[in-house]
Amino acid sequence: MDRNSEAYGVVEWPGAVQPRVVARMGDSVLDLAGALERVGSELAVLVRGPSLDELLRAGPEAWAGLRATLATLDPDPALLPAAAVRPVLPFTVADYVDFYSSEQHATNLGTMLRPNQPPLLPNWRHLPVGYHGRSGTVAVSGTPVRRPSGQRKEGPAYGPTRKLDIEAEVGYVVGVPSELGRPVRAADWREHVFGVVLVNDWSARDIQAWEAQPLGPFLGKSFLTSVSPWVVPLAALEPAFVEPVRQDPEPLEYLRPAGPALALDLEIRLNGHLVSRPRSAGLYWTPAQQLAHLTANGASLRTGDLYATGTVSGSEPDSRGSLIELSWNGESPLSLPDGTSRTFLEDGDTVSITATAPGPRGTRVDLGAVTGTVLPA
Amino acid sequence: MDRNSEAYGVVEWPGAVQPRVVARMGDSVLDLAGALERVGSELAVLVRGPSLDELLRAGPEAWAGLRATLATLDPDPALLPAAAVRPVLPFTVADYVDFYSSEQHATNLGTMLRPNQPPLLPNWRHLPVGYHGRSGTVAVSGTPVRRPSGQRKEGPAYGPTRKLDIEAEVGYVVGVPSELGRPVRAADWREHVFGVVLVNDWSARDIQAWEAQPLGPFLGKSFLTSVSPWVVPLAALEPAFVEPVRQDPEPLEYLRPAGPALALDLEIRLNGHLVSRPRSAGLYWTPAQQLAHLTANGASLRTGDLYATGTVSGSEPDSRGSLIELSWNGESPLSLPDGTSRTFLEDGDTVSITATAPGPRGTRVDLGAVTGTVLPA
Repeated sequence: MDRNSEAYGVVEWPGAVQPRVVARMGDSVLDLAGALERVGSELAVLVRGPSLDELLRAGPEAWAGLRATLATLDPDPALLPAAAVRPVLPFTVADYVDFYSSEQHATNLGTMLRPNQPPLLPNWRHLPVGYHGRSGTVAVSGTPVRRPSGQRKEGPAYGPTRKLDIEAEVGYVVGVPSELGRPVRAADWREHVFGVVLVNDWSARDIQAWEAQPLGPFLGKSFLTSVSPWVVPLAALEPAFVEPVRQDPEPLEYLRPAGPALALDLEIRLNGHLVSRPRSAGLYWTPAQQLAHLTANGASLRTGDLYATGTVSGSEPDSRGSLIELSWNGESPLSLPDGTSRTFLEDGDTVSITATAPGPRGTRVDLGAVTGTVLPA
Repeated sequence: MDRNSEAYGVVEWPGAVQPRVVARMGDSVLDLAGALERVGSELAVLVRGPSLDELLRAGPEAWAGLRATLATLDPDPALLPAAAVRPVLPFTVADYVDFYSSEQHATNLGTMLRPNQPPLLPNWRHLPVGYHGRSGTVAVSGTPVRRPSGQRKEGPAYGPTRKLDIEAEVGYVVGVPSELGRPVRAADWREHVFGVVLVNDWSARDIQAWEAQPLGPFLGKSFLTSVSPWVVPLAALEPAFVEPVRQDPEPLEYLRPAGPALALDLEIRLNGHLVSRPRSAGLYWTPAQQLAHLTANGASLRTGDLYATGTVSGSEPDSRGSLIELSWNGESPLSLPDGTSRTFLEDGDTVSITATAPGPRGTRVDLGAVTGTVLPA
């Protein structure tokens, strides 16, 4: 078994009346409840439902126990090829928060959208800027992206967006809830966070630009947010934890210790063509800081809360995580090897975001893919 | 029985292992599953759970059937005094959206916060501005309000908010879901919306002011949003539906027909003293327009979605729905009859928002109260 594809998901299982929790093992998936029952593990009770919710809620000791048990299993006769099963949304999304943690992304957007002002707003280096998205439209990879309609400034008029975009992000999945009124300390983030998914936060830039003052993005984002089907536990990503970037000014005490950054190497493909390679190691704010900030006012966590980094963009042009950056808001169309070019997405386009991370002994951990194809309005 | 207190809720019932769905009848509450089972109604299946969720999901025909059945019931021996039962959150909150629909509130805030610019931003009369809040911290009336800490601009520093505020709002509770990619037409809003609750969207103005650019309010709001325990069905509010205010410019087609405004008379009490009487009839955007806008990009609805009007403020100073308006951002403290004064909330303060509406034959419909007491940080 290839331990470096270790991840959990939920799939439609042949002959089963409801989706089953599975572990991904290389190119295969293992029915977890069945495998754990055969070895008499009491952890089986956590994976009998149609989602990862019970496992997420169970906490770090159970998570470690499951990993340890899986490592002792004999090759299982009930393995199915991953390609033979259809993944579904792996957990019940409670609240969805999207941050804005890439300095380069925030700088690029500021430069484009507020050309005569400093690109970073005054708060940006003091706190992880973020907002709540729509959790009801978080969907599993493969869900078609119906081109959204909305109101744009020109007119104003209502119609299909002309600036349909992607945002390549990393999402953190909360397992253990917290109590209302009790902030979670940055140092305790791994007591709550189970693992990682890839996120594509589809965006309609024209709708967003017109609606977002003064209360932030709303319909420019809420039509769909796609997540990868496989939740990779933090424990499988130990070799990918690296020193975070230096922060200046030093963050306030509630944002310390910063904890590690997570070094995922993302790849964005448009109709199969590699168009960008963002790296999450360079994000300014860490997952520990984001969680501490999110709860600093006493807001409680629930199992299934999802918080994402915001667009992962690097300083090189070929490491930007959105088309508005890659095409500089449409001014510099992106040439594709098939002879076409893009500013924003066209109907029929397929976007796939994949990622790998350093694994043990020089291997790579595979985080899977989050994919979607644009349907006409 | 007083039909004018018709509303549904969920309470801890003496001797029951889980909360029970009840109908409020004047000063009494009726165990709904028990009452419906005794008359052999098949609707009983919708109210056996510990929340209103199944009833909400069932749709307008079931809602009308339940009202009709309740009207035929004999006086019930199992009625309990409303004061003897403790209400809990009546439904599972899916996504929570907060609008900004009072022209006077938006004008007041714009005047205070952007003094040298036109008070209303350019988009305000073209679309119902709104954003997503945190559904996991929507709680039932009576939940204590722990004073939130957060980061403020001065310093910047982290500490207890110095500008803890209220926002008196009306919330609409969605029952029937909609399909991803299919906007709900304004004309169809009553196919989806079950009823109304009162909302207090507690706000920390100093945290909000520092964090909210460019992505909108986040921790300044997410520590708590309180709702009244009683969901009043739209059908019980027919006499309160009135002509909406005239809109100029005429809204785009997807925001038509505007449908009615809902004429609730709210009262805000601070430590028992009446401090404001906002009226929802004057809101610029209607509930039909808010729902059409919320789904205009194809975002789907789920049972339990809650969307609120935003602060209800009228043009008279004694009809403003927030302390930031009543004290003009602290410049004009509010004098209370007990000899004290307030700019924002102090520890120990209790705020209660109540509302009534025109009922049949000159009666008033009572929407109950949403209440909370501030605890120290």
